[in-house]
Amino acid sequence: MSVITLLTDFGTQDGYIGVIKGVIWRIAPQVQIADLTHEIAPQDILEGALTLARCAPFFPPGTVHIAVVDPGVGTRRRPIAARLGEQTFVGPDNGLVTLLLEKAQGADQQVQFVQLDQPNYWLDRVSSSFHGRDIFAPAGAHLANGVPLLKLGSPIDDPVRLIIPQPERTPQGWRGQVVHIDHFGNCATNLGETHLAQMHQVSIRIKDREIHGMVKSFGERQNGELIAMLDSDGWLAIAAVNGSAAHLLQARAGDRVEVSGL
Amino acid sequence: MSVITLLTDFGTQDGYIGVIKGVIWRIAPQVQIADLTHEIAPQDILEGALTLARCAPFFPPGTVHIAVVDPGVGTRRRPIAARLGEQTFVGPDNGLVTLLLEKAQGADQQVQFVQLDQPNYWLDRVSSSFHGRDIFAPAGAHLANGVPLLKLGSPIDDPVRLIIPQPERTPQGWRGQVVHIDHFGNCATNLGETHLAQMHQVSIRIKDREIHGMVKSFGERQNGELIAMLDSDGWLAIAAVNGSAAHLLQARAGDRVEVSGL
Amino acid sequence: MSVITLLTDFGTQDGYIGVIKGVIWRIAPQVQIADLTHEIAPQDILEGALTLARCAPFFPPGTVHIAVVDPGVGTRRRPIAARLGEQTFVGPDNGLVTLLLEKAQGADQQVQFVQLDQPNYWLDRVSSSFHGRDIFAPAGAHLANGVPLLKLGSPIDDPVRLIIPQPERTPQGWRGQVVHIDHFGNCATNLGETHLAQMHQVSIRIKDREIHGMVKSFGERQNGELIAMLDSDGWLAIAAVNGSAAHLLQARAGDRVEVSGL
Repeated sequence: MSVITLLTDFGTQDGYIGVIKGVIWRIAPQVQIADLTHEIAPQDILEGALTLARCAPFFPPGTVHIAVVDPGVGTRRRPIAARLGEQTFVGPDNGLVTLLLEKAQGADQQVQFVQLDQPNYWLDRVSSSFHGRDIFAPAGAHLANGVPLLKLGSPIDDPVRLIIPQPERTPQGWRGQVVHIDHFGNCATNLGETHLAQMHQVSIRIKDREIHGMVKSFGERQNGELIAMLDSDGWLAIAAVNGSAAHLLQARAGDRVEVSGL
Repeated sequence: MSVITLLTDFGTQDGYIGVIKGVIWRIAPQVQIADLTHEIAPQDILEGALTLARCAPFFPPGTVHIAVVDPGVGTRRRPIAARLGEQTFVGPDNGLVTLLLEKAQGADQQVQFVQLDQPNYWLDRVSSSFHGRDIFAPAGAHLANGVPLLKLGSPIDDPVRLIIPQPERTPQGWRGQVVHIDHFGNCATNLGETHLAQMHQVSIRIKDREIHGMVKSFGERQNGELIAMLDSDGWLAIAAVNGSAAHLLQARAGDRVEVSGL
Repeated sequence: MSVITLLTDFGTQDGYIGVIKGVIWRIAPQVQIADLTHEIAPQDILEGALTLARCAPFFPPGTVHIAVVDPGVGTRRRPIAARLGEQTFVGPDNGLVTLLLEKAQGADQQVQFVQLDQPNYWLDRVSSSFHGRDIFAPAGAHLANGVPLLKLGSPIDDPVRLIIPQPERTPQGWRGQVVHIDHFGNCATNLGETHLAQMHQVSIRIKDREIHGMVKSFGERQNGELIAMLDSDGWLAIAAVNGSAAHLLQARAGDRVEVSGL
């Protein structure tokens, strides 16, 4: 049984996601469907790309990910599909798969993009504002059914790439930023193990607060205390033990985080 | 594999929807279940009916839709099931299927209503406040298993019909209203292609704002600009390009929308 | 086809739940997955335990429930799995299954706990902060695949038990408390049929309001009226007909509820 995932900024109140599942199961009745999230901030492609990159690797080979954060719907932006390694991605050509593309290229995996231009794999009637339903859902369902990627569109080699915020070197270490604040108020950064390696007596500065040293787990500190640790995806995160670091710090995505050490 | 959908005003915090899935899979372990939405405003039958009508047509023939917005639970309101065309609906008799019924009748499709009065297709113990779990979920599961509609209840021909707000003629065109505001703040109206046909130089008035002309897609205007277009369901909608028209206009369901033209 | 349920305090915005489904379907592609809820208040084990106890009994025998409200993740708290009657539970050892354990023991059903200590049933790399993904999801998937409980860990007989608030006797009846406020604002208490049996002319006191007598269903009173009834799980609940009792009373979990009668 194959799996399709859905990641959107559609919310869950209007039935749009239900409709997408109806379209999928009409074409591929046997697939399992997992919602990654539908709470990406409206039009926030970067948040979508980061979330997709966090989630996709845990899914089985053969999974089809339909990712639709689509401020350009109804413009000339291209609908695309991509094979990256052992998984397939469907959505607007706006950089949602940038991080996964970089990862696949870094690992010398298969990379193949197509522009979806074969309307016989779409719904009969295509609206100008809901390609999630009219193009991406049916295309994803056909892919999950085993239709080859190249049947759905023509190869392209210039997919749009997002500019992902990168950390910068400082005299004492690195300057990065908060890139994601989760439901618990944990603040994940774009600083990872590679930036922290070979640094001793690490100190983390965020919003005028200084955190001395990193911990390996929440249990090393008291409730409410601010900590720095590598999160479950390997990124430096600022957290509060059984509390919300985002709330304590009034932190937001984009806030500067500086790491220094010896 | 058959599909059951769920549409309720139950929210997702309490586990009620989980329980309904447990009841369904106990009886029909093979069915796929899609949540349409559980965020219908509490007791808002009209919003439920409009959402159900938007979603249901995209599901496969044979789908069973369980729709429970049920202010009358525990009163004498009847539990019903209905075959409308190739799909089946289960829920309280309060008009949730009115729009789909009208559509089925307009298309000369099969229409059959029953009052659910066969407790052997319900849970053993029926509460007075959670018929979604005790009556509608098991009834829907049995229907998905192929039990004939007429086994579950006795035919009725007087289902409750909702009064759906209808546009009115004006000297220059039509007066309708906002009937749905979606997650993006797009304001859908009850004015459709039939109302706009043969009108030229269309102008749309809402909340003291005048929108001149309609666009075919978001891409024709700049970010933040207010536009009028036919939405993905064919209804006149007021939107803001990559923004929220509802926020810009402080619009709410029920707000008057006037269309005029030559 | 077997069923896995998920109950967490993870919210749905970050993709964590999607990831868990990916992990499960990688190991057990055929299982159905139901979300019970992911809106347990962060770290609120009691709310998790109460919700799990309300939902689990409606699922088929053989269901595996993964319940993760886990303030102790990364401390020495044990990961556990339990067979209670015909269902299996996986999660942190913090009392989430207390109510179901008491019920199984009361009914003389099978009770078997293990500490999960066999890493070959986990993901290869185990983080210190996301055991839901790294330990509980794969363990649950293997159990759904039919791997015996005792393969996944070593028997223990001292699972953590939560202290569940119990009603107290008063001269005129019982003093309990609000234990759950649902999406509709209904206030469920820890007073049940056993407490109310053989009481006549019952009166319920909550937040300086007195409710005389109980009703069997919403339909017996007018819209907006405050009522007391046995809810769909058999607990005394304070509700407002087609309104929110929690809003009317400014009620919260923990609020005192006194029942008196003759």
